[in-house]
Formats: sequence, structure tokens, C-alpha cells
Amino acid sequence: MVEPVSAFLPLAAADVADVLTDLFLVLLAAKVGDEVFKRIGQPSIVGEILAGVLIGPSVLGLVEPGEVLEVFAELGVVFLLFWVGLETRVSDIREVGRTALLVGVLGVVLPFAGGLGLGAGLGEDAGTTVFLGAALVATSVGITSAVLIDLGVLRSRPSRTILGAAVIDDILAMIVLAVAVGIAGGEGTGAPQVGNEVTSIVVVAALAAAFVAFFALGGTRVMQRWPRLLKEPRFSESPLLPAVIVCLGLAAFAAQIGLAAIIGAFLAGMMVAETKEQHPIEDEVAPLYAFFPPFFFAFIGLELDLAELADAETLGLLALVTAVAAVTKLAGAWLGARSMGGREALFVGVGMVPRGEVGIIVAGIGQAAGVIDAQLFAVIVGMSVATTLLAPPLLRSLRPSPGADGGRAAAPG
Amino acid sequence: MVEPVSAFLPLAAADVADVLTDLFLVLLAAKVGDEVFKRIGQPSIVGEILAGVLIGPSVLGLVEPGEVLEVFAELGVVFLLFWVGLETRVSDIREVGRTALLVGVLGVVLPFAGGLGLGAGLGEDAGTTVFLGAALVATSVGITSAVLIDLGVLRSRPSRTILGAAVIDDILAMIVLAVAVGIAGGEGTGAPQVGNEVTSIVVVAALAAAFVAFFALGGTRVMQRWPRLLKEPRFSESPLLPAVIVCLGLAAFAAQIGLAAIIGAFLAGMMVAETKEQHPIEDEVAPLYAFFPPFFFAFIGLELDLAELADAETLGLLALVTAVAAVTKLAGAWLGARSMGGREALFVGVGMVPRGEVGIIVAGIGQAAGVIDAQLFAVIVGMSVATTLLAPPLLRSLRPSPGADGGRAAAPG
Repeated sequence: MVEPVSAFLPLAAADVADVLTDLFLVLLAAKVGDEVFKRIGQPSIVGEILAGVLIGPSVLGLVEPGEVLEVFAELGVVFLLFWVGLETRVSDIREVGRTALLVGVLGVVLPFAGGLGLGAGLGEDAGTTVFLGAALVATSVGITSAVLIDLGVLRSRPSRTILGAAVIDDILAMIVLAVAVGIAGGEGTGAPQVGNEVTSIVVVAALAAAFVAFFALGGTRVMQRWPRLLKEPRFSESPLLPAVIVCLGLAAFAAQIGLAAIIGAFLAGMMVAETKEQHPIEDEVAPLYAFFPPFFFAFIGLELDLAELADAETLGLLALVTAVAAVTKLAGAWLGARSMGGREALFVGVGMVPRGEVGIIVAGIGQAAGVIDAQLFAVIVGMSVATTLLAPPLLRSLRPSPGADGGRAAAPG
Repeated sequence: MVEPVSAFLPLAAADVADVLTDLFLVLLAAKVGDEVFKRIGQPSIVGEILAGVLIGPSVLGLVEPGEVLEVFAELGVVFLLFWVGLETRVSDIREVGRTALLVGVLGVVLPFAGGLGLGAGLGEDAGTTVFLGAALVATSVGITSAVLIDLGVLRSRPSRTILGAAVIDDILAMIVLAVAVGIAGGEGTGAPQVGNEVTSIVVVAALAAAFVAFFALGGTRVMQRWPRLLKEPRFSESPLLPAVIVCLGLAAFAAQIGLAAIIGAFLAGMMVAETKEQHPIEDEVAPLYAFFPPFFFAFIGLELDLAELADAETLGLLALVTAVAAVTKLAGAWLGARSMGGREALFVGVGMVPRGEVGIIVAGIGQAAGVIDAQLFAVIVGMSVATTLLAPPLLRSLRPSPGADGGRAAAPG
């Protein structure tokens, strides 16, 4: 801001000033976007994403999406899913288990097939085609979760189905991505033996499933039996830090074994929820849930590069990819949920559509592997943002009855 | 953690996993250190700093002090001083203004003179000598603030004197540092004209003083008159994000003009405090105040490299520098505060001793400017940590009467 100073400042101190300025600008923009969209009756997270587009490289260029902001964005979606986990009981998910499994599996198979068909139809080679399929697979449950909380329907049957399906979806997406990286690597970037790869993928997938089962079933029981693990009663302490440590620990562990960090955070939330009778844990987590998630939504907008999309051919491709991504996911999830009845199945289908940060991450991996070029990267990022912006208004119009939720999930914004 | 996975993971996703793991390990270690030190009746922040030493490069090598952790540490001390500001009224500081000014000025002059004398006595050249002086100048008020909150004496007269003096101290330290960088630069690293430098230093110092006066006086009045700036009553919203945005904005602005970010955060806290009658703002900030500061304390420990201090000559130099740093600051601040009476003046003196992260930052600048070698860098970092560990137990034994505080400042740990 003030030019003459920097001559005396070391890089390190100037960096700190710039990082603080970025954090300030992102939080301010997201809050303004949120308020504006609330006032015009639109979903506030759409306002936060568009605020990110506005201050990002696409329009004003005030903020670049760097490493620190990415970490804040990641913690944003981690605390978002931790909050969702706090509002969810294992029994809620078990009740809808069979439907959630179907939604998860069909919601992966159809988009993957759609992506493969699209790649083949466009005449891409095998590595690019399989990556396009992988990029269309993974749902970003963060976006939908925020809308569900906003609508006060987090504990309704379709919402619980979406949450259960998102866990299945992520495990399958991890396997699909591993296969895609293996094939892309096999095309000449020095991949290990195919036999080793298959073994590793099986091991990793089994580990992921075991992790989810262990913490969802065992972890919650441990917490039920020994709630004082979170609050040692001899000290008049808050259980906040122990709860946050469990959250970060499981998020880190999930990420280390190749799952999304948010799966770990969600499991941690369900575990901590078992001690809710003993502690006012939600009141204490609420400020973290208010502080971090705006960075997540704004960061999605920051990553969009409108200039890369500014020719007719690219826009056409974007429309095509977005349509395939939306229709295949909607159809797959709807098929899986159709036993719930038309309107609720449609709600589940729409709720699975947003690709959010997951699509962007997969596109980045494909670019690093050399099979996704700059145009296709921009298209996949555009598809991720487009599917993310599409879902919230549709979810609002399809809103199910609140069920057992009763608005309990509302938090300070 | 799990080896076979990383073969399939892109660098980006593996990085996210590692950052989450680091955040988890640092928070866990800090919390354990805090609990252990509470149980053995010692200041908990000392436990958090030593936990940082333990998991850092010096001992176990589990965590390296990187950019992301530094940002979390910075936000830790920012939210710490924001909290202190929330507990402070402008009138509290104004009452002790004259004494605080004296403490601030004498608490800078004596350590600077001590550092110059020490450098000359050791036969160092002009650049190194002036940097040694600069490194001995700046108090890190974060450490003392945490102890004051812990003791429940934040609003006592000596505590308010320390807070006021810390603001003066930081403005003077900025000027001293700018002069030191100018002299070091003049020794051959391509510094600008000396005339320009003096002008810039005067401009920057005036700007800093104007910034402090403007927000301390004007900002608090604005908030008194229009508390709804933080809480638009037509929306049932929490004032948390607006308050945090003010905090980050002033912290970033302070850092951009060359002041410590915590000065801006402290001013922001005092501004927001003027709306306390309208909002339960402290309850909402408390979880952020519980989450971030442990990163600050642990990071100080992470930065210490014990191996660099492991020979007799370096240890001797460390003892000498630490003694000069502690005695000159104590004497200067005590002289400034002696009108308060012996015991309170001593409390103020001890409270100004910790150099914490500020000494480490100055040493880093000196190293970048080429006038602080590896040995002296390790010694200054060691001095910063030693003065920081020295003060909390002494402050506890000198604890003044709680005054108007009455433990209101306690927050969840």
C-alpha cells in the first residue's frame, strides 16, 4: 500500500504483510458477496464464490490463489464437514445405508462412463480420456453441505443419503483417480510396474474402507463410553481444542492415505457428536465454522481463469463437458435414490452434482501428468465452478421437509 | 505415514496432507505441553514453547518451521492481541499514558545502548554492532499478554502500562530497525541515498504514529457512535466476521506500514470493545483465541536450533547477550515506571523483557543483510527464547492485585 516502506522491510516481514492483506481481502469480499446474495434472495455461497472470481485474477486481480490461501480453503471445507459431522449420528447414515451405497456407486459409474465416451468422441488419446472420466467423477460435498445447513434440512432423509453417498463416492473416486494416474503415467512419465500398481490400489482402497468403518463405528463407540477423553473434568477446560485436534488428526490421516481430508473431518465430527450431551461443543466450534469456510468458497472463485475460456470453441467445449458432468451425475444418483420417490430422489441427484474443488484438483493432477492441456484444464475448472453454481438454487427450489433437523444446524455467519 | 500411496498422489495433494499433519502435530504438542505445565504448576505458555522445541528440528525433527506454520503463528499473536484489545479501553491506556511513554522510551534506549556497547566490546564492525542493538530493542508483548490473561490481571495498572509501552516500543523499534538496515545496507548491499532514507524513516514513523492515534482515538469513537457497523440489526447475524475483518484489516495495514501486525490487532480489539454492550463478541472470539495462539508459542520453540548453540564459546556469548538484553530492558522499563512504586515498577520491567518472535525476526533481517553470521543468529534466537522463558515465572511471583480485572479475561484453553 505505502511504497517507500518496502525499501526498509525484509522480504519476510513484507510477505507477512501481504499474506495478512490477502486474508483480509478474501474474507471481506466473501462477506460482502454473502450479504449481497442474501439480500437478493440467492444462495449466499454463490455470492462468496463470485466474490472470489471478482477479486481474483479473472477480474480485478487483487488476490492470487497461493499456497497459504489454499491451506485456509482446505481448512474451510474441513471445518465445514466437521460441523456437518457434529450434526450427524452414525445411526442417521446407517438407516439410509443401502440407498447411499447405490447413489454413490451409480453416481460414479455414469459420470466416469460419460467422461470416457466424451473423450473417445473428441478423439483424445487413452490417458486424456481416462483423466476426463476421472475429473467428472468426484462430487464435492462441501458445497451441498453448506446449502443443506442453510436450508435447515441437514438431518432430513435425502440429506443423510447425500452425506453417506459422498463417503462412498470419495473412496471410489480415489480408486478411479489412481487408475487414471497409472494409465497416464504408463504413457511415458516413468510409472511403476502395472502389477505393483494394481496391488497398491487394492491395498489403498481396502485401507480407506477400513479407516472409514473403524472410525465411524469404533470411534463413535469409544466417545460414547469415555466422553471425558475430550474433557478432563479435573480441569475447568473447554473441549474445543481436543475436538479440533481429533478433527485435524483424522483429516490429516485421511489425506495421507489418499482420501479427501473432509472424509476424516466428517468422521471426527460424528465421533465428537457422541459427547454432545456433556459439552456445548457446537457453540465453541461455531466461530471456527464461521471463520474458515468463506476462504473455501472464495478460493473456488479465485481459481477460475475467465480469460482462458474466452473463445467460442472453448466455451462450446465447456458447455458440453458441463452438460455431460451434470446429467450423468444427476441420472446416476437419481437412479440410486429412486426408491425414495421422485422429488427426494431428484434432490439427492442435484445434491451430488457440484464438483467444486475436487474437479479442480483432478484437473491439476492431469495437467501435472501431461495429459490435460491448458484448454482442457480451463474447461474442467469451468465445469467444476459451473456445476457448483448450478446446484444451490436448484436445491432451494426442491427443498424437502426439515425432518428431525428443525434448524438446529444454523450457525453464526 | 503410509508409503505406497504417495506413488499415486500428486505433489499438491501430498502437500495438503503434510500441511494438515503439521498443523495437527503442532496443536497436539502445544496442548500436551500446556496441560503438563499446568499440572506441575508452571506457566502453560512455557510448556507450549518447549513442546515446539521438542517436536522441532532441535530434538525429534517431526515438524519443520515453514511458511504456512509461520502464518498460523502470526495469526496466533494477532488474535492474542485482538483479545487483549477487546479487554482494554482507550481510557485505560490514557490513564497510564505518561508512565507508559517513559517505559517505552527508556525501555528502548537502554537495550539499544547495551547492544551497541556489547558489539563494540566484542570488536564487531558498525553494521553488526547496530544490528545487535536493534535485535535487543523490541519487546514481544504477546508472551507477556498471555501471562497477564492467565493471571487475571490484564486490567491492573501495571498491565495497562505494559500494553501502552509496548505500542511506543514498537514504533521506536521500527525506527531503530530502519536505521540499522540503512547502515548495514550502506556497507555494500546497494542501499539508497542516506538523505532519502532519513526522509523515509521520518515519513514512516510519522505515519505509524498517526495510524495509532487515528484508530485508538477516532476508531473507538466511531464504534461508540455506530455499533451497528459491526452488526446490521436487520439480519440476525453474528458480529464475529465483521469484527475479525476489522482485526485482519488493521493488522495488515500496520504490517504494510512497517509496524508489527499485532499493534493493528490491538487497536482493532479496542475499537470492537466499544460495541461490547451490544454484542456478546468475546464469547465468539474466544474459540479463535483458543485455536490460533498455540501455533504462535510452539513456533517460537520450532525456530530454536539447539545444535547451533552446542559449543562453549557460543553458550558463553548467549549468556552474555541474554544478560545484557534482560538487564537493560528491565532497568529501562523499571526506571520509566518507578513512580508506580517498587513492586509494580519491577512487574512492568519484567513484563517488557521477552523478545519472543520480534528478536528472531530482527536476527533474520540482519542475516539477510549479511551482517549477522550463523553463530550470532543462533545466539539472538536463543536470547529471544531465553528472555521469553524467563519472564512468565517471574511475572507470576510478582503478580499484582487483580484490580478492575476480576478474571473476566479468562478464555477457553
